This record gives sequence, structure tokens and C-alpha cells, in this order.
Amino acid sequence: MKKVLRERITYPDDKRLLVEEALAYYFPSGETYPQVIYEAMRHSLFSGGKRFRPVLTLLSAEVFGCESEDVLPAACAVEYIHTYSLIHDDLPAIDDDEMRRGQPACHILFGEDIAILAGDALLAEAFYLITSLQKGEPSKIVQVIGELAEASSARGMVSGQVADIISTGKRVDASTLDFIHTHKTGRLIQAAARVGAILANASEEEIEILSVYAHHLGLAFQITDDILDVVGQVEVLGKKVGADQRQLKATFPGTFGLNKAREMAKEAADRAVEALDKLKADTSSLASLARFVYVREK
Amino acid sequence: MKKVLRERITYPDDKRLLVEEALAYYFPSGETYPQVIYEAMRHSLFSGGKRFRPVLTLLSAEVFGCESEDVLPAACAVEYIHTYSLIHDDLPAIDDDEMRRGQPACHILFGEDIAILAGDALLAEAFYLITSLQKGEPSKIVQVIGELAEASSARGMVSGQVADIISTGKRVDASTLDFIHTHKTGRLIQAAARVGAILANASEEEIEILSVYAHHLGLAFQITDDILDVVGQVEVLGKKVGADQRQLKATFPGTFGLNKAREMAKEAADRAVEALDKLKADTSSLASLARFVYVREK
Repeated sequence: MKKVLRERITYPDDKRLLVEEALAYYFPSGETYPQVIYEAMRHSLFSGGKRFRPVLTLLSAEVFGCESEDVLPAACAVEYIHTYSLIHDDLPAIDDDEMRRGQPACHILFGEDIAILAGDALLAEAFYLITSLQKGEPSKIVQVIGELAEASSARGMVSGQVADIISTGKRVDASTLDFIHTHKTGRLIQAAARVGAILANASEEEIEILSVYAHHLGLAFQITDDILDVVGQVEVLGKKVGADQRQLKATFPGTFGLNKAREMAKEAADRAVEALDKLKADTSSLASLARFVYVREK
Repeated sequence: MKKVLRERITYPDDKRLLVEEALAYYFPSGETYPQVIYEAMRHSLFSGGKRFRPVLTLLSAEVFGCESEDVLPAACAVEYIHTYSLIHDDLPAIDDDEMRRGQPACHILFGEDIAILAGDALLAEAFYLITSLQKGEPSKIVQVIGELAEASSARGMVSGQVADIISTGKRVDASTLDFIHTHKTGRLIQAAARVGAILANASEEEIEILSVYAHHLGLAFQITDDILDVVGQVEVLGKKVGADQRQLKATFPGTFGLNKAREMAKEAADRAVEALDKLKADTSSLASLARFVYVREK
């Protein structure tokens, strides 16, 4: 039964390829001195991955009648921000992970100094990419930048990462775990969806509904991530499993046990799909993405 | 003679105080969990300093008829970016400096992990501050964000820092030294000036003239910085002197000798002042700032 379900739910690879091509096209090619910083940025940006967040931006824009092609700069900016956060997370001073997406982490290949700076450069380049190439009403562009800046700041991702660090090795309650994950992973996923909707001129109300969807989607994504770190396969994931447990990280399986965590992931995915009912548009692609998140193996 | 000159040239402390108050006012006060990240950001942001870059933004805006008060969010964003870059520069993996502005560096007090993240958060917060509080035509706001994003990215500061790292311990030629300093220090100083002019609705031509001024100003600033690292006083500077030499950094005194470097700083300050002649407005405050940069003791 589960196998059948998996076969039916496919990832929107057409959108992923569109993102992949756009990332290659937008990547700075003119000024490339000093080469090593561009190599480091490129290494982390082009080491595979599902491109989940930019794909979400594309799908969200499409739901509100905007072509995927018209939001590619903003979508790629979201991936820049995600990639910067992975590079910094992997640093010895933070999670000390040596592998990422089946490749050596940025600092392993380029050294800690270059890795820190490659992350910094990708974060700044994300905003530059939007201001230089994203088409749209300037007021919408400002709104999009605000969404992504907020999600990347201490109001978003950074506080999730810090809460994660200070909770490591401690027994955390459900509300701390919720804070960590809604901030560390959830905010950028939510922003990715909102950015697509904003650029597609969705109404305030529609954006709010989409945010509820993306909130549950982000939760389903993170719980599944935690589960895969326990039961996933190294070859499929491209990184070591069991890292959370070795590092005594606060996780859903750690706090609730594996079975309960699985239930919670399914429930979050279901609630994401339910939220879409309030939208009049064809939201089947977003519903399918939520189901994919729950059944994914990497 | 020199002493007399120094007494005549004063720093625009009224503007510095305006920046100081605005920084305190804008600093996130609502969401302050986890406290440690805000403490780390606050520590580095409020450890004194001349507030040179945001003061430059205020003066540039004023030259083109815009009140200082009207560009404070953008000016403070410039200081956030500058502060983020100092926190990351000081990290053990990069310059490994333990003191900054007479205080322990961020990572000494809060650890490397929190320092990396505090820098990240300040960079993102800079863009959030502009989108949430800077008034002006949305198209101007987008332009301002583009300026600062470009200056902070590998197109600007980051490549200067990387060139600095890869040149350390080597004998560098004048053009590499020029690359390092126009990127590492120069670009953000130039952007600080441009941002003020853009928000004050200066013409393209006026912005270009101001950019020439700011280019020379940045050079004068950096050469003087290098000189002060050789001849400055620890108590006045608030950091150890001789760090460049110990770290075998590429510097103007190192490449050209102290006397020639002093001449070059004076020449750069003179050329900054000369550039202002092409503007019709009253540019005396900017001229005075260029002279201050050359005679400053910290």
C-alpha cells in the first residue's frame, strides 16, 4: 500500500530543472576574482538537492496565475539563502558536519575562512539577484525582500539555529522543539511560498491561507527530516545518518519517539493539504508537494 | 602646524549621535528569544565606533537637500552590514582578533557559533530594516538595497576579504593591494554615500560624482587605517597595533613604506575633496570628513 502511494506521488522535476537552469544562468560569471570564493559558492550551490524551496516558490506563483519563468530570480534567491544556511550550519563551530548532499561540506574543501565568506556572499547575492533581475512592481519587490530578510534574520532562521544550539544535549519540551523547527526550517519555507504568491499579485487573504499551508508543510518537512536522520539510508540521503542523536540534537523522534513522530508528520502534511481548500484556485500541485514531503526518502 | 590643523577639523558628532540614537531605537526589542543572539548582536553593534559609514550616508543625503532623519533606517542598515563584517573578520578562522573597539571580540564573549550567527543575523536584519522602515519611492528602496547587497557580496566586500586572505604572507603588487582595499573597505563606504544620494533623489550624474569622492575617501580611510596599525596608540584605537605585520597582511605601509603611504593618504583625501568641486551644492561637510579621515588618530 505504502509503496503504491510512493509511486503515485512524484516530485515536480520539471520545476526543479527550471530552477537548476536558472541557478546556472544567474550565477556570477563576469567578475570571478578571487576564483576560490566563486568555486566555494558554486560547490555548495550546485551539489544537487531537491530545490524544494524554489520549487515551492514556482508552484505558489503558478497557483495564482503567474508563470514559473517570471519568478525565477526570487526563487533562486531563496535557494541562495538556503545554501548559505547549510554552509554555515556545517561549520566546525556549529554542527561540524563533513558531508552534505553526498559531497564534502564547503569548509572541508575550501577551509573554514572561505566557507564562512562563501555563506556570507550567497546571503548578500540573494538580495542582489532580486534587485537586479526580478521583474515586478517595485513595491512588490520590496515586500519580497522584506519577507526573505525577515526569514533569514534573528526573527527567523537564525533564532531557530541558536535555540537548537542552546537546546543541544538538553531534554526539550514540545514548545521549544516547535520554536526551533518553525524558525530554523519553517520560516524560510513559508517565505518561499509567500514570495511566489506576492509576485503573482495574490490578495492578502490568499497569502495568509498559503502561509498556513506552508507552516504545516514546513513542519511535515522537518519532522520527516528528523525521521530520515534515524531510519534513512546514507546512499540516498548523501549524508551520514544518526548525526542528530550523536550531537544530542532536539528532534521529533527524540522527544516523541519514532512512531508518534511519523503520525505527526502525516498529520502536518494532511493539515497543509486541508488549508488549501480555502483557496479557489487549482492547488493540486501544492497538495501533491505536501504528500511528497511526507513520503520522501531523502 | 599639524596640531593646529587637527584642532580645526572636527568629526560631525551631531550626526554620530543621531545614528547612535537611531541604532538603539531600531534594534529589535520585541522578539528576544533566544536572548544570547540579541546580546551578541547588541555587544558588537553598541561598542562605540565612529559610525563613519552611516554618518557619510547622512551627510550625503543632506548635500542633496534631504534631512538626516529621513535616511536613518538606511544609514543604520549600513552600520549593521559593517558590524557583521567586523564580527566575521575577527573570527579565529579569519583574522583571529580578540579585541575590537576596546572590547572583547564577539566570539570571545559568546563563542564562535553565536558570533557567526550574530554576523549572519545583522546582515539579514540590515535588509529587513530598510524594507520595514525606510521611507521613499519603492523603486529607490530597491535601488538602495541593490547597492548594499552588491557591496556586501562577492562583487564587493567578500572578494576584498578573500583577496586579503590569499595575499597574506605574500609580496603583493600595487594592483592587488588596490583590489583588496577598494573591495574590502571601499565598496561599502562608496555604497554608504550613494545610498544617501539615491534617497535624496540626486541625479545619476550627481551620484557618479559622489562615487568618485567616496572612492578616494575610502582609499584615504584604508591607508590611514594601515598607518595607524603601525604608529597608532592602543588606548586610542581600542585594539592591538601591529596586527597587520604580525599576520603578514598586505598593507600600504608594508608595500610602499610609511612615508609614501602618508603621502598617498593625503593625496587620496585631496582628490576626494577635489571631486566635490563638480557638485553645485554645499559640500563643505563632505570635504571636512575627507580631511578628518586623513588626520584622525583612531
